[in-house]
Amino acid sequence: MNVLVLEKVGQLALREIEIEEYLGPRDVRVDIRVVGICGSDVHYYQHGSIGPFVVEEPMVLGHEAAGVVAEVGKDVRSLKVGDRVCMEPGIPNLEGRATRLGMYNLDPDVRFWATPPVHGCLRDSVVHPEAFTFKLPDPVSFAEGAMVEPLAVGMHAANKARIKPGDVAVVLGAGPIGMLTALSALAGGCSRVFISDIQDAKLEIAAKLGSVVPVNVSSQSLTETVLEATAGWGADIVFDAVGVPNALSQGVEALRPGGCLALIGMPGKAIPFDVVAAQVKEVRIETVFRYAHVYPRALELLGSGAIEVAPLITDRYPFSEAVEAFDYACKPEPRSVKVQIEL
Amino acid sequence: MNVLVLEKVGQLALREIEIEEYLGPRDVRVDIRVVGICGSDVHYYQHGSIGPFVVEEPMVLGHEAAGVVAEVGKDVRSLKVGDRVCMEPGIPNLEGRATRLGMYNLDPDVRFWATPPVHGCLRDSVVHPEAFTFKLPDPVSFAEGAMVEPLAVGMHAANKARIKPGDVAVVLGAGPIGMLTALSALAGGCSRVFISDIQDAKLEIAAKLGSVVPVNVSSQSLTETVLEATAGWGADIVFDAVGVPNALSQGVEALRPGGCLALIGMPGKAIPFDVVAAQVKEVRIETVFRYAHVYPRALELLGSGAIEVAPLITDRYPFSEAVEAFDYACKPEPRSVKVQIEL
Amino acid sequence: MNVLVLEKVGQLALREIEIEEYLGPRDVRVDIRVVGICGSDVHYYQHGSIGPFVVEEPMVLGHEAAGVVAEVGKDVRSLKVGDRVCMEPGIPNLEGRATRLGMYNLDPDVRFWATPPVHGCLRDSVVHPEAFTFKLPDPVSFAEGAMVEPLAVGMHAANKARIKPGDVAVVLGAGPIGMLTALSALAGGCSRVFISDIQDAKLEIAAKLGSVVPVNVSSQSLTETVLEATAGWGADIVFDAVGVPNALSQGVEALRPGGCLALIGMPGKAIPFDVVAAQVKEVRIETVFRYAHVYPRALELLGSGAIEVAPLITDRYPFSEAVEAFDYACKPEPRSVKVQIEL
Amino acid sequence: MNVLVLEKVGQLALREIEIEEYLGPRDVRVDIRVVGICGSDVHYYQHGSIGPFVVEEPMVLGHEAAGVVAEVGKDVRSLKVGDRVCMEPGIPNLEGRATRLGMYNLDPDVRFWATPPVHGCLRDSVVHPEAFTFKLPDPVSFAEGAMVEPLAVGMHAANKARIKPGDVAVVLGAGPIGMLTALSALAGGCSRVFISDIQDAKLEIAAKLGSVVPVNVSSQSLTETVLEATAGWGADIVFDAVGVPNALSQGVEALRPGGCLALIGMPGKAIPFDVVAAQVKEVRIETVFRYAHVYPRALELLGSGAIEVAPLITDRYPFSEAVEAFDYACKPEPRSVKVQIEL
Repeated sequence: MNVLVLEKVGQLALREIEIEEYLGPRDVRVDIRVVGICGSDVHYYQHGSIGPFVVEEPMVLGHEAAGVVAEVGKDVRSLKVGDRVCMEPGIPNLEGRATRLGMYNLDPDVRFWATPPVHGCLRDSVVHPEAFTFKLPDPVSFAEGAMVEPLAVGMHAANKARIKPGDVAVVLGAGPIGMLTALSALAGGCSRVFISDIQDAKLEIAAKLGSVVPVNVSSQSLTETVLEATAGWGADIVFDAVGVPNALSQGVEALRPGGCLALIGMPGKAIPFDVVAAQVKEVRIETVFRYAHVYPRALELLGSGAIEVAPLITDRYPFSEAVEAFDYACKPEPRSVKVQIEL
Repeated sequence: MNVLVLEKVGQLALREIEIEEYLGPRDVRVDIRVVGICGSDVHYYQHGSIGPFVVEEPMVLGHEAAGVVAEVGKDVRSLKVGDRVCMEPGIPNLEGRATRLGMYNLDPDVRFWATPPVHGCLRDSVVHPEAFTFKLPDPVSFAEGAMVEPLAVGMHAANKARIKPGDVAVVLGAGPIGMLTALSALAGGCSRVFISDIQDAKLEIAAKLGSVVPVNVSSQSLTETVLEATAGWGADIVFDAVGVPNALSQGVEALRPGGCLALIGMPGKAIPFDVVAAQVKEVRIETVFRYAHVYPRALELLGSGAIEVAPLITDRYPFSEAVEAFDYACKPEPRSVKVQIEL
Repeated sequence: MNVLVLEKVGQLALREIEIEEYLGPRDVRVDIRVVGICGSDVHYYQHGSIGPFVVEEPMVLGHEAAGVVAEVGKDVRSLKVGDRVCMEPGIPNLEGRATRLGMYNLDPDVRFWATPPVHGCLRDSVVHPEAFTFKLPDPVSFAEGAMVEPLAVGMHAANKARIKPGDVAVVLGAGPIGMLTALSALAGGCSRVFISDIQDAKLEIAAKLGSVVPVNVSSQSLTETVLEATAGWGADIVFDAVGVPNALSQGVEALRPGGCLALIGMPGKAIPFDVVAAQVKEVRIETVFRYAHVYPRALELLGSGAIEVAPLITDRYPFSEAVEAFDYACKPEPRSVKVQIEL
Repeated sequence: MNVLVLEKVGQLALREIEIEEYLGPRDVRVDIRVVGICGSDVHYYQHGSIGPFVVEEPMVLGHEAAGVVAEVGKDVRSLKVGDRVCMEPGIPNLEGRATRLGMYNLDPDVRFWATPPVHGCLRDSVVHPEAFTFKLPDPVSFAEGAMVEPLAVGMHAANKARIKPGDVAVVLGAGPIGMLTALSALAGGCSRVFISDIQDAKLEIAAKLGSVVPVNVSSQSLTETVLEATAGWGADIVFDAVGVPNALSQGVEALRPGGCLALIGMPGKAIPFDVVAAQVKEVRIETVFRYAHVYPRALELLGSGAIEVAPLITDRYPFSEAVEAFDYACKPEPRSVKVQIEL
């Protein structure tokens, strides 16, 4: 099987390896068509580890994928050969306690693509459970299908924030996750989204996503902007999509009494939290980890046109140039949001 | 003051009456510009009563209004003369128990326009509390501002249903409330709305509101349509916007396990409920009465363009033809959704 | 294996049959010690069917059981031989959509003891998945362990009602489920529970369960009693534990604005629902079907003494008199609540 | 009027002052009988300020009070002369936005007893709105009635945590608020509460409050204790009732996946928050400020006996020794929980 493999830190190779996979009765085999590059892929390439996860053997990268069903197990009912699909990269233990409670994203036994020692999906094909493989609606392309994975992160955050129609939201950070969170917030009922960043190129893209107000925090106060726009009341929800050290203080400042702060970004270390400032507004803080039960919903909203991710797919490479794609993703241009590889 | 007054059942007059109103320190006086006609106005005109509310003295009709601030009380802070506004028609007792709990729509002491013995707003001007008067965003016209009242009903239902982004909804009935509920459901995160009716003219209008699937139930099974479109799973939410006798059975049939049935329409009498059919899906039923805290949210979504109500304003009359407007509203054409009167 | 088998309608036998069972790696074998008789067991005995479920082959009865672990599969971690346990009688398909969402009680593929064609637990031993087998805390007897099944129904209803500490509740019906729901409501934060019935013997037992106010509705108005006790405001929650035809009207009358009506009882046919009466209070209706994720919580509350079910176990029979136990359960004395069989 | 007045930092006096109060139509006059001393009273005595609130004029202290209705305004309906009552110390602006949304505890215009420049209740009598004055159930003494204020803090936290029956909770800190939170958690449905402190005298009192497990964290690991007791799963809820710097890290460690951390204590400065540790469990953080809508619920639970606060009232002084009471409260014995003054 042709794969893009991380041999060791800083060394990628496009080569053949053997991956034996058993097609169970409720599994499907999917030929991969498009794979997006995520920040975590780049991080493994550059550093060889993320927290406790260390790449010790050559590992196939990639976990944002779409493709075509090539073979189905004997008990598969919802999919057939030829179906265009995308896949959740994490397969939880269905018998685990968190999974049974509906929180499979918190299952400690989850096997997640391109998280050592599990191979990712930058390869010819994968075998995957039917239950975590989802048919793409007709209007959704493979490239858009491969965007469902990062979109699901934003939508999961939007779910947890419990948006009420007409809410005003703030997103900290106009990277891929920030933009997809803004789209999720708008599709989920927010009337306006303020998005902050320090790169004008990113903010210009964000400003075209709908009812989005860009705030370049290198020259403008986010809190003042939000308070002024809401007659001093504050935003209903703040999403931190970057893990900035001042996420908590900025978020609390910009929120209305009873507002919600959803933490998606992962700060590298502990950050300071002024508890009293949050208490006098009774801020609710939701912490977000991956997603659960979101793929079908994301596909519904992509299929209906309520969410359009195409403008965020800024760079495409053929599989034969996958290493170049990664090298570009390590030092992208400011106008770059998502880099994808086509197989 | 010039008013449209319901003298008694079946008899409307456009004439002058005296309405004394005191402008309190936190009140505003508003010159009325547009008033929409609601089914309840028509019902009082034709029948003289709704349930326990009987018109015993001449009563000014109308409760869907927008206008311009003409005078402000001395402690008013958020509004000034010249502001374009719309008003909530019900003023609750702020000291009531339900009000203090945040449910002012359930306050038994509420004074609601055009609910006997309280005069409505089809008149030159009204005095209204600042707290229930809301500035129109620039892009929102008076006519659209006068639509906020019925829109608020749909949005309140959408709130209570607790939409999750990507939900599939069904709306029973393509009247004004049904259409506004469909718009609310889409703006609130639904990916698709199936709307049922027996009038093709209405369904044609509904089909243009966005990701709306019209279902003429005189020739097509709603349940089958919904189940087929959701791979047998069912809709996440069903809104009954008409009060049909089979609302409960239709709703339960079309819902997924764990779905929500929101009852907006008011059936004339008790309707049958198959409890066991609801139990095996653990359906949650939310009953909806008017709205609370919705106006600012509705205006946010109108201002951002997420909700467009203009296509639903199908008929306009000058104030001088207000009686004709009501007579038309008693027997509207099928293509008619909302009739408004301009002052 | 010795079992109590329902040969056909009206004919029970205590005899040997062969039940082949495979002990999987995450299964346990449990020697049964106590089994409670449920209304559904009695109904199958008397009528041979419940709704679509028809007894066509001899079927072992019983689904309320506690016992001792006799053997464990090789991957079992949380249980060992000799552990005292109780078991959930329903085993869902872990790959089903409702199950993955956390609502396994709504899984259409569930295999539930003593629901045709699945054998029940009135037998020497059963093989059961570890995930649905729960260790009894030391202070909890086998008899109490066998009460967890019906208690779970009441606790699930209490969960769905979303009790706030200090709520006032009403329970319609002082049968076993009504009493266990009252106990669940009190343990779940209710300050007072009004329980209604027409049998004084039942109400006397209920009155001893804690802060419970018995209301004999053959001589006393439930609504008046509740409204008087709450200064005219109404109860926060009404649980219907019997499926009475007037459950909806009684419940709505007794509720406060914004209250919740939880429907546990299963009326034999559709019952009338005055939607408008519910709307003016914006009553929320939760329908309840069995339970999910409740066993560990029920055992916690039994173990801590917050819930005491012993007073409700009114009649015990040895296994050798199991047929007599069923005949008694068909025509119990008024003071009888739960009949159990000891193996 | 006789009062206990804080003349300036460190100087208390029991003397007469004149406080003019107007009895409005919906007000009552209450003769004070018992007032509890809160940490904030002591803090103003010792430091003259709390955050932005500075005592610049002589101010009457005290905000935990119960008494007897001595006079009622002409529109008062729910109370009469002679009624035994307790009062909420904060009177919000009923027209404020947060208040109308049901969150009156977050109203910036609230007038709160003994928060400068508002006089407290350590005086002969107060005039108070009927809406914030609550009748004591017969079994509740004045002393217990004066405990409703701090109890309401714990109950509000329990509300916000959204306890499910059978939850396991942890309370950090066995001071008055910690103990009252433990009682609230148990009454609200928790099966067990682990409470941590470093004073054995406090933990001994806590251990007698019901299903409470004391953990002296100077000699024992809280996390290990909780994880061991929950088979490695963790607690459902952690309440921080002290504002310790490691509240966040301890809380997150002790929680189960999807658990809730409720922050009641107010740390003096920003504390470190390891966001990623919270994310991998998707911990929800609720911040708590005073209370709203809790008094009637607290009185219900005191009246039913579900909560017993009497063991926490450890020290009583006559009004004539109010200064001594404060001096004692500055340096209480370890076995002291709540000091009260009787008028």
